[in-house]
Amino acid sequence: MSDPIDFYFDFSSPYGYFAAARIDFVVAPFGRDVRWHPILLGPAMDKSGNQPLIKQPAKGDYSVHDWERLARFMDLPWALPDPFPIATVRTARAFYWISETQPDCAKPFAMAAYRAYFGDGAAINDADVVADIAAGVGLDRQAVSDAIETPEIKQRLRDEVDAALARGVFGSPFVIVDGEPFWGADRFWMIKRWLKSGGW
Amino acid sequence: MSDPIDFYFDFSSPYGYFAAARIDFVVAPFGRDVRWHPILLGPAMDKSGNQPLIKQPAKGDYSVHDWERLARFMDLPWALPDPFPIATVRTARAFYWISETQPDCAKPFAMAAYRAYFGDGAAINDADVVADIAAGVGLDRQAVSDAIETPEIKQRLRDEVDAALARGVFGSPFVIVDGEPFWGADRFWMIKRWLKSGGW
Repeated sequence: MSDPIDFYFDFSSPYGYFAAARIDFVVAPFGRDVRWHPILLGPAMDKSGNQPLIKQPAKGDYSVHDWERLARFMDLPWALPDPFPIATVRTARAFYWISETQPDCAKPFAMAAYRAYFGDGAAINDADVVADIAAGVGLDRQAVSDAIETPEIKQRLRDEVDAALARGVFGSPFVIVDGEPFWGADRFWMIKRWLKSGGW
Repeated sequence: MSDPIDFYFDFSSPYGYFAAARIDFVVAPFGRDVRWHPILLGPAMDKSGNQPLIKQPAKGDYSVHDWERLARFMDLPWALPDPFPIATVRTARAFYWISETQPDCAKPFAMAAYRAYFGDGAAINDADVVADIAAGVGLDRQAVSDAIETPEIKQRLRDEVDAALARGVFGSPFVIVDGEPFWGADRFWMIKRWLKSGGW
């Protein structure tokens, strides 16, 4: 089996949410697994000089309209959260801890967190909310609460963000297939073509 | 017949080039014509606070790679021009003058200009090059040279750019179907779905 495909996303990114709902299904027919990497786009934006879409004139209004439209087309729960965007440090730390201790629960946790934020407007960076979401996918509430405040897991997230930036990741979603980068939720057609052709 | 679809693009935009090669073919099965509007992204970028992709760290490198890859997938001529991007004021003025006087030549002129820039690196904003490209699609060289320096055609381009900004256009390509906006060369699937469903 080939190496897993790397999927980078921010828990506060609408296009990351839309991509997360599809990525594993899209590449499964090619016999490929997906390794999920929640990151924080703040540092990437500092580096690239970008701002959150919603803060950009014209593009911000368009994006709000586009997210609602995409959610409708994909039949996914959607309501623009307030506040938005948020730093999802604890959500991302919880993901990495779960992926180390109970890996089968990691993607269900991530999808539950995404739905809680973009479906219900939950404050998914609050420690209590993180614990609730983790409990909802079968994890021990207190163990998660303790884990996301340890120096080890804080360092794990910092390392993941640094590694993503070093690989050229600058947005969410961002997919890397055998070294080939694909940015955006609109590029599944290209990823499929790439996998089908063996990278041409 | 329904109103034409509006297609906004900058002659210096790679994604505009890729979209221009496809847009008319994509919507023809739905009985729709396309009205082309070359614009200048400079004013839109000033308004939105954006910079040309190529000047953005990480995203610039990705874009260069993506343009080459997309051109290969679409089997279109491609070589990153130098200088890039450029202000394509005269190219756009020529387009509008041609669309007023010999409308059947306007899209062939636009595609020839795009190929000259992204295929051959031609200086498509130079008056002589504009005249050459126009002559290549059957227009009178001198008439084009004279026309692109008149106050009327200068004003026409300014009006088009202002009208585009007023409609929320902030990038290239940008397509508006019966008031519904679509940004980006990756959104033809969504435009088709929109046309098929009658706008849902």
